[in-house]
Amino acid sequence: MAAIKTAYDLKEPSHLVELTEVRRGTPMGEYLRRFWHPVGLAEDATATPKVVKALGEELILFRDGNGRAGLVHPRCAHRGSSLYYGKVEDRGIRCCYHGWLFDVEGNCLEQPCEPNMGSNRDKVKQPWYPVEERYGLIWAYMGPIDRKPLLPRYDLLENIGNDEILDTDDRSIGSGGPVIADFNWFQHYENVVDPFHVPVLHGTFSGTQFVEAMKEMPKVDFENFDLGVRVTSYRNLGEGKRLRRVTEAMIPTLRVVPSPRLDPAGPCTLIGWVLPMDDTTFRIYTVGRTKQKGDLQKIRSRMNGKLWEELGDDEHQAFPGDYEAQKSQGDITWHNHEHLALSDQGISMLRRFFLRQVKIVAEGGDPAGVAFEPGKELIHSPAGNFIEELETA
Amino acid sequence: MAAIKTAYDLKEPSHLVELTEVRRGTPMGEYLRRFWHPVGLAEDATATPKVVKALGEELILFRDGNGRAGLVHPRCAHRGSSLYYGKVEDRGIRCCYHGWLFDVEGNCLEQPCEPNMGSNRDKVKQPWYPVEERYGLIWAYMGPIDRKPLLPRYDLLENIGNDEILDTDDRSIGSGGPVIADFNWFQHYENVVDPFHVPVLHGTFSGTQFVEAMKEMPKVDFENFDLGVRVTSYRNLGEGKRLRRVTEAMIPTLRVVPSPRLDPAGPCTLIGWVLPMDDTTFRIYTVGRTKQKGDLQKIRSRMNGKLWEELGDDEHQAFPGDYEAQKSQGDITWHNHEHLALSDQGISMLRRFFLRQVKIVAEGGDPAGVAFEPGKELIHSPAGNFIEELETA
Amino acid sequence: MAAIKTAYDLKEPSHLVELTEVRRGTPMGEYLRRFWHPVGLAEDATATPKVVKALGEELILFRDGNGRAGLVHPRCAHRGSSLYYGKVEDRGIRCCYHGWLFDVEGNCLEQPCEPNMGSNRDKVKQPWYPVEERYGLIWAYMGPIDRKPLLPRYDLLENIGNDEILDTDDRSIGSGGPVIADFNWFQHYENVVDPFHVPVLHGTFSGTQFVEAMKEMPKVDFENFDLGVRVTSYRNLGEGKRLRRVTEAMIPTLRVVPSPRLDPAGPCTLIGWVLPMDDTTFRIYTVGRTKQKGDLQKIRSRMNGKLWEELGDDEHQAFPGDYEAQKSQGDITWHNHEHLALSDQGISMLRRFFLRQVKIVAEGGDPAGVAFEPGKELIHSPAGNFIEELETA
Repeated sequence: MAAIKTAYDLKEPSHLVELTEVRRGTPMGEYLRRFWHPVGLAEDATATPKVVKALGEELILFRDGNGRAGLVHPRCAHRGSSLYYGKVEDRGIRCCYHGWLFDVEGNCLEQPCEPNMGSNRDKVKQPWYPVEERYGLIWAYMGPIDRKPLLPRYDLLENIGNDEILDTDDRSIGSGGPVIADFNWFQHYENVVDPFHVPVLHGTFSGTQFVEAMKEMPKVDFENFDLGVRVTSYRNLGEGKRLRRVTEAMIPTLRVVPSPRLDPAGPCTLIGWVLPMDDTTFRIYTVGRTKQKGDLQKIRSRMNGKLWEELGDDEHQAFPGDYEAQKSQGDITWHNHEHLALSDQGISMLRRFFLRQVKIVAEGGDPAGVAFEPGKELIHSPAGNFIEELETA
Repeated sequence: MAAIKTAYDLKEPSHLVELTEVRRGTPMGEYLRRFWHPVGLAEDATATPKVVKALGEELILFRDGNGRAGLVHPRCAHRGSSLYYGKVEDRGIRCCYHGWLFDVEGNCLEQPCEPNMGSNRDKVKQPWYPVEERYGLIWAYMGPIDRKPLLPRYDLLENIGNDEILDTDDRSIGSGGPVIADFNWFQHYENVVDPFHVPVLHGTFSGTQFVEAMKEMPKVDFENFDLGVRVTSYRNLGEGKRLRRVTEAMIPTLRVVPSPRLDPAGPCTLIGWVLPMDDTTFRIYTVGRTKQKGDLQKIRSRMNGKLWEELGDDEHQAFPGDYEAQKSQGDITWHNHEHLALSDQGISMLRRFFLRQVKIVAEGGDPAGVAFEPGKELIHSPAGNFIEELETA
Repeated sequence: MAAIKTAYDLKEPSHLVELTEVRRGTPMGEYLRRFWHPVGLAEDATATPKVVKALGEELILFRDGNGRAGLVHPRCAHRGSSLYYGKVEDRGIRCCYHGWLFDVEGNCLEQPCEPNMGSNRDKVKQPWYPVEERYGLIWAYMGPIDRKPLLPRYDLLENIGNDEILDTDDRSIGSGGPVIADFNWFQHYENVVDPFHVPVLHGTFSGTQFVEAMKEMPKVDFENFDLGVRVTSYRNLGEGKRLRRVTEAMIPTLRVVPSPRLDPAGPCTLIGWVLPMDDTTFRIYTVGRTKQKGDLQKIRSRMNGKLWEELGDDEHQAFPGDYEAQKSQGDITWHNHEHLALSDQGISMLRRFFLRQVKIVAEGGDPAGVAFEPGKELIHSPAGNFIEELETA
């Protein structure tokens, strides 16, 4: 691209729709709908209906009196009043307006204003989505029902030790900002495969956000693998040791990011799923092996000694973190104004990976990483912080 | 319609434009403009200009020094400054910017910055609408001037007794929500001919909002008449008596709804006009025969012992009323997602009635119920709560 | 135009795009981009980046460690993070995300995550605009770089006396409203050549905002000159004297308005530039000869004894000033609803003047008043309040 002379020469901005927009019918929206997504903590599903937002759709989450979680479209199939105002019963949820009762699979069980409770009630289906529970999260499948894969397992979260629990968090650990971040999810997701910003943004701009070792500019290998992009960063720790840090961005929205405080060393102990709530908001659900409930929240960064939400406007300007860097790229970044460089190799690889996957789905295929055969749904990751002896040549 | 499998199969939403949108040039907007609409209480028209909104138009209401109410477009015909800032004088309203003076029929009386107070001032007309006053309300006619009908009278409000007054209210009695409701007026209006929701929404969901008798599922007759749709609901009161309750939705926006507290029995004592302020806001003006000023406000429902505006978010969810049921249908409901049933017969009839009327106007005719000949403008309604002996077969 | 019968006959509103819209690529936007515009006070440019908005563009203003003011596009040329979060250094501003360093002309000096600080960094240019400083203001040139004219001087601000200073103000003196006015700039600008509103709006509606003499309806001469429109208003002061008041609206956004309090008499001592921030917001930068810093703020009008921001809603209605008159014309006024009269001659002339100038630029020419040859950039104005002997015929 020819260099501009001044800002007067800037071209009209545009973004890559295929990577960013998530509504039903968009390329990425259809790709993401071929996977299970976390839409709540297990404890979010109760007898009080709760609004959740996922992939541009507003939905109602509840748990019936028999313990089954349900996820339905808010508008009652009858005349559209919201099931947010519904009454949860043993068998399902009942609309406040005319009392139609639906079970967690959208079947209409009663139409009390109709003769015989509605002779044609089996012709009506409340729009719903399949739900499963695992690792303390509620998972939803929002795609075509005949392509529903198995809910994945992750080896990093299986076989936990006697002194460990699985701690679950829905407050967007790793975003460096508010619980619900107000910009496109892919801007955040790219950051996972961008090891070079660490010594700049987290090492010098806002003090040492992490640890001293992370301030060193790393030597980095980027590689594609079948489920995403892997980044291996090497840093010299002195005394004949080096840090080998492996990070992954994996289908469809998984971030496998070992602690940037290098504590503990060894395989990664927590993983997070980015949930695009719509094109310009997302949140992150995280599950990790910890000693006790609430430990995950303790790893959040502080800048100027404060949590993000405690900082004033001037402090946000003076101590920018991931949120400020990514949000200020725009609600959706302008891809055609970028100038990618050699150090952006991970980002280029991630975009190409997902553009390929999106295309596979658009052409009618199944994306990489969906499993339909029991036993095939286990996902492995080699991510972690590994302290190694320096090779002596 | 074939039942969907999950929410993934939902079709794109749409609404019936002909029933809902009210701007000038829309089918319903032109229909409604063939009638008089209340745009304020008589006491709203004073020497201080007041902004009112009706059928998508913002207007300025005032009363000149000679006692004549005026309703004008806000933008001064000269250069567009708002007459909200105008000075009301004996002969009319004067714009603050260059002092042009207009009377209540929009005639320009003075242009003080022009030679001779404006030699061509009779070529200028401030946009205005005809106004009349009756029953304590200001009525406006916003349609083509050559089709202006007589302002209706209603027999239920004529010949009031010595111990009665006509009480007037502009705070949307019957909407179950705020003074200005923030969704399409027709969603509310349909509720008038929906007797079956009463035992569900008002009888079991939020406690007994009305009286015990109304909790019974009624036997209902729906019928078309020349001016709208009439609903007759029968409930067994025990002891050989039954309640016959007659409710009407009548041209163009009239709700004739007897007290759901059945007090008093007999013919309806109050009627209300829904004013669509624009496509997604409305308010209701009510006039009733009462003992004293302010009685109308006393009939508002309480839920959990509180008026609507006193409830917190959790209480609105726990105790939904008409506002919650209708507002949650959307700013404008999605008609193509509905599944109407037998008990929705009144709603089907009302829609068909208005679709026919809208079509008559679109084709150049006069809608049902407009009167041009004095004496023909009296409107009768048989609505009321009637306690009758049960027929013994 | 045939007079309407009622508001029902109003035509659809529209505005003159050529006079009002200011984004790059619009006719007026391209015209305005051929001139220098004030975008801040000199003290606004510091080591802390500051957001400024001009002609629909958001920009970042800063001053590097060598004292040079810089104005750059917010989005870093690399990946779009905002330079609002940048660190200002001696040589320029450094992005928080990956540390790219740019000088005030947008040259990329360092890319710290790249080998050799970025071998191709000279291929990248941060979008920037040329900046100069004069009269205590920061001026920006936002047009095509090869058409950049000399920064103008104004004779009214040159050769100031020993007891005078140049006071500078960015709080929209003369708008009669908030610091940033929320409507189209041209509505305000037209007011400069509208002497007839003074006795109405400022003389009778809101008390005597200025001085008694200004309440008289003036005799007015309007004239075109090469750089805009000049208005000469004559008022009889009694005792054989008259006031000759000369006001100018001059390329591209300059208002030369002598004190409406007639203090002091003689040539105008302050001038103001209207900065269209976007199509519906503007602010005014003012420079004047005063005795001491802060004197400019003292000339703001009071209504009901209060500054504009101290008035409540009722007082704004009761005591309208320029802001209320102009803002209520709409965010952008509806030109096709106007009825211009003889007293609007200045406004007609101003519109024609700018329509001609806009056309010249659209056709590839240079607009009137841009100077490329040193010595030609001095702009003269005969504006002022002059007290003269009445001619005796």
